[in-house]
Amino acid sequence: MRIDVITLCPKIVEAASGEGILKQAIKKGLLRLFIHQLRDYAKDKHRTVDDRPYGGGPGMVLKCEPIFDAMEAIGYDKEKDTVVFPSPSGLPFSQKLAASLASKQRLIFICGQYEGVDQRVIDQLVDLEICIGDYILSNGTIATLVIIDSVVRLIPGVLGNENSVLDESFKDMLLEAPQYTRPRKFRDWEVPEVLLSGNHKAISTWRKRLAEEKTEKFRKDLWEAKKKETQYESD
Amino acid sequence: MRIDVITLCPKIVEAASGEGILKQAIKKGLLRLFIHQLRDYAKDKHRTVDDRPYGGGPGMVLKCEPIFDAMEAIGYDKEKDTVVFPSPSGLPFSQKLAASLASKQRLIFICGQYEGVDQRVIDQLVDLEICIGDYILSNGTIATLVIIDSVVRLIPGVLGNENSVLDESFKDMLLEAPQYTRPRKFRDWEVPEVLLSGNHKAISTWRKRLAEEKTEKFRKDLWEAKKKETQYESD
Repeated sequence: MRIDVITLCPKIVEAASGEGILKQAIKKGLLRLFIHQLRDYAKDKHRTVDDRPYGGGPGMVLKCEPIFDAMEAIGYDKEKDTVVFPSPSGLPFSQKLAASLASKQRLIFICGQYEGVDQRVIDQLVDLEICIGDYILSNGTIATLVIIDSVVRLIPGVLGNENSVLDESFKDMLLEAPQYTRPRKFRDWEVPEVLLSGNHKAISTWRKRLAEEKTEKFRKDLWEAKKKETQYESD
Repeated sequence: MRIDVITLCPKIVEAASGEGILKQAIKKGLLRLFIHQLRDYAKDKHRTVDDRPYGGGPGMVLKCEPIFDAMEAIGYDKEKDTVVFPSPSGLPFSQKLAASLASKQRLIFICGQYEGVDQRVIDQLVDLEICIGDYILSNGTIATLVIIDSVVRLIPGVLGNENSVLDESFKDMLLEAPQYTRPRKFRDWEVPEVLLSGNHKAISTWRKRLAEEKTEKFRKDLWEAKKKETQYESD
């Protein structure tokens, strides 16, 4: 996969590309990541990329010209490429959307301030406005990192252990059971007996019960959805 | 406010601290940000911070000892500090939660792999497990950046224009209307007439209508909640 990021904060993306799965994916030749400074496509000496909104109101709006110029310079192909703009007005990001993006040949992310780009950019260039959650960010580049991280880990071959991808939260709409690792006793606190028993059935039952309790307590929304689905299955 | 980040990827946080509102907040003396490499608190020569889960299963689990040692080294105060662990099993992050965190004296973020920390860390140290959205990340540090960005912009004085904070999405459960800035005509595409009219009432009506249409189209969930709230108000 090829990913291009057009951003005002290239250093954040560069730092992220040197860590964890992004680093692994690049090293394995499964990801080519290109980072572009939007300001390099501004035309005036102040390198202006934004301006005040027509009709008034607070905040600044990213201008058309530098973005269209950047897209042309990086060889944007309207037919083949998928262009993402992270924005509070976008479609809610989900594991399903991550999986769909993971199958694309090339993703291009346009990021600036998290709010405010000229609507003509959205209308003419952007395929998907994506919202990573119902909270406000100042920095669209951080939202882009979230999307990239969750997409790249789904590219086949990126994670060492493919089970990790399958055996994860939200797949079956339950939160994960508590996890423990060595030492068996840390200060006054011991690992639950059952996890040391070697009895796989008992461990699995214990984990399921705790996952259900946690989900019911902290995520009533997932819990209700899960119950509804189980009902359909047994109908 | 003071924020401490305990992480395996300090460079990502360092890069983010040099950009946008984090840079501004630090410059204005409104934020002190301390970044700690978790691996510095490992005891063996391989600097091990994680191990396999008791009871089996995929993935690795962050160990207790380096985290407890790091917390002691940075002067963690159980009474005064708020400790956050970003995790898919956490409370859903929201603008309301961001506002509540923005009023704290000191936040400490523990981040490693996005999934898997020894439950004794959660039980003994963590005040809040926070989930930034229903998708899986590999890197908890990226989730931490999301939370920090949205919290720091709510600290009074950080944003130049305080209106920006008030006049934003999710506040009144409508997405934002399209925005436009100069030039008035870009290629074949013109800015809508009404925004150039200087008629504030017409602009406001137009924006409200487009925000409603967009919300109804893309976010049925917000739209239904909005309608319900309006009903209560008129009852």
